[in-house]
Amino acid sequence: MLIRDLPDCLVCLCRQAVEAGRFLDLTREVREGLIRQTLAHLAGRSWDVSPPEIAAETQEFMRRLSGNDDPYRAIKQASTEAALALWPRWEAKALSHPDPLAWALRLSAAGNLIDCGPTGSLDLAAIRQRMDFALRQPFGVVDLEPLRDLLAKAGRLLLLADNAGELVADRLLLEVIERARPGLPITVMVRGGPVLNDAIREDAVASGLPARWSIADSGARIPGFPPAAVSPGAREAFRQADVVIAKGQGNWETLGAVPHAGLFFLLTAKCPAVAAGLDVETGAAVLRLAGPGTGGRTADTGAAESEDPARRTGPSRALSDDPARSAEGPRPVVSKGGESTVEGSASRMSSPAIPSTGEDG
Amino acid sequence: MLIRDLPDCLVCLCRQAVEAGRFLDLTREVREGLIRQTLAHLAGRSWDVSPPEIAAETQEFMRRLSGNDDPYRAIKQASTEAALALWPRWEAKALSHPDPLAWALRLSAAGNLIDCGPTGSLDLAAIRQRMDFALRQPFGVVDLEPLRDLLAKAGRLLLLADNAGELVADRLLLEVIERARPGLPITVMVRGGPVLNDAIREDAVASGLPARWSIADSGARIPGFPPAAVSPGAREAFRQADVVIAKGQGNWETLGAVPHAGLFFLLTAKCPAVAAGLDVETGAAVLRLAGPGTGGRTADTGAAESEDPARRTGPSRALSDDPARSAEGPRPVVSKGGESTVEGSASRMSSPAIPSTGEDG
Repeated sequence: MLIRDLPDCLVCLCRQAVEAGRFLDLTREVREGLIRQTLAHLAGRSWDVSPPEIAAETQEFMRRLSGNDDPYRAIKQASTEAALALWPRWEAKALSHPDPLAWALRLSAAGNLIDCGPTGSLDLAAIRQRMDFALRQPFGVVDLEPLRDLLAKAGRLLLLADNAGELVADRLLLEVIERARPGLPITVMVRGGPVLNDAIREDAVASGLPARWSIADSGARIPGFPPAAVSPGAREAFRQADVVIAKGQGNWETLGAVPHAGLFFLLTAKCPAVAAGLDVETGAAVLRLAGPGTGGRTADTGAAESEDPARRTGPSRALSDDPARSAEGPRPVVSKGGESTVEGSASRMSSPAIPSTGEDG
Repeated sequence: MLIRDLPDCLVCLCRQAVEAGRFLDLTREVREGLIRQTLAHLAGRSWDVSPPEIAAETQEFMRRLSGNDDPYRAIKQASTEAALALWPRWEAKALSHPDPLAWALRLSAAGNLIDCGPTGSLDLAAIRQRMDFALRQPFGVVDLEPLRDLLAKAGRLLLLADNAGELVADRLLLEVIERARPGLPITVMVRGGPVLNDAIREDAVASGLPARWSIADSGARIPGFPPAAVSPGAREAFRQADVVIAKGQGNWETLGAVPHAGLFFLLTAKCPAVAAGLDVETGAAVLRLAGPGTGGRTADTGAAESEDPARRTGPSRALSDDPARSAEGPRPVVSKGGESTVEGSASRMSSPAIPSTGEDG
């Protein structure tokens, strides 16, 4: 997804700058400088870039003008503590659920609601309520059987983490997977440095990940995983993993069109632009196997902005409109000019929704 | 209200530019140019100006780049037609209501929901639903008795119109007032030229205003009434009216601190920034006599952004926290440097809410 196809993202980037001033308790002058610098940057910069990459740049203004290298640190710590307090309840649910993987996936998608990116603040009580509500909703798109199949034979599993706090829910998902596949090498990849409330190494440690798992970082201070910007080691870890679970919008926005036979996006579609790109309603949870139709870099047709109602698919849409699709697996991708991309005309895909758990988290 | 005190308004101004491209079906290049020009303008311009004045400037980019001098014309016509279709129902309600003035004021405030400023589009069915819902809610602030008192002895009434469509509901309000004060000279003032979906002369004519009322225009192509920018004739009409009913956020944003003993703001507080300035919840209807505490140009303390919970007053708050206030009438204002202003320390005011009508529109 590029800004030029999704200029709505510019509005959110402006909002981040406006709200950061309040959030960081900046003086009027510093706040005004931050907003002006952000507006001018967005006005003059090429938009041939993904939203997370441009957010990384505007977050840099915030750090520089506030003199605070990790403005979201306290929020991240509070998120992790709040999530850890819910851990015993989550673990008990997972152990007693008839399909622990399905439940843990849903929890991890709901954990994606622990995010202050769009609003600059974090109301933990509200988030707990929203997670409880989310856990009672079915997935909008759920490629659960492909994930089961690939996990059953995987040699390496990589989780691309998103936000602090959310990572505690991801930890439960990984523990559930590990219970079915003891000894499976697991790597959790965090961001290369503080950016928004995304998890970094210290957040991963605070989340209580077992020492037997590897913690790696992307080498990039970007709230996503743009292959060209992350470190060679991170790129290699991505390439070598048989199954990659990429959490959150930022990872989808930067990896939506990158070829990988075992790449799954697991997120809650929190904004209309991302929801449209994923063919779900805003607010829907998604577990989607990557491939044509999963979004990513769109062609000049501007398909991601299409108003065609057939492109809008609600959580209740249970079957693919292209039945051959799910049998085929991911389609071949086309590489253009050295950059990975997929064909622009999205063949939309969805799978039967798993039933709601019918219970809260 | 100045942009420097309410930078949140910048986010909405960016959104207007982003959504206008879709709304006007601009090519990608023109749309991108419009957004870039708006962002650069907001980044570089002084923020010592009200939101409607800066919106007037960015709307000018839209007109120039699209080559369309009145991009909202079809929407305005559709709004007026939709409102006229509801006229017989509204008129019957007003005639049968025990307090026609209270009901017509509520209708006029609900009519303020006919607005595409924030979203760039207009869903008439949704607006009708929202108006029906709004009519069942009480006012957040209602200075109904002061209005009755001043209307009873008024020699001239001025309505500062806001949006097309909404003006049909305002017409019913004026007819109800006229029934109690036959022969009262009434002037309806529209904008000096097309800007957003604000009513201009042709919209006033289409609304079916009786020929005995005067239609004037502000002489300014601005979605508000900044005294320094409107024509001398418009300023004079404002000064000479004993009662002014100023509809909508734009008029409040530009007149909130202008002294006038009979100035009432009648609107729905559609955005959090305006709601905070008026001490009501977002979405609340307001009929408020102007004076200290009604918002307007804030002092450097940034009071309009205060997080003090005591400043947030919900629709259920029925009594003033300054009981002397309502008995006193408007406080004297202070004129600084030739520009009308009021003292910055807002004494908050509200009056008993009129009961909900308990019925739809």
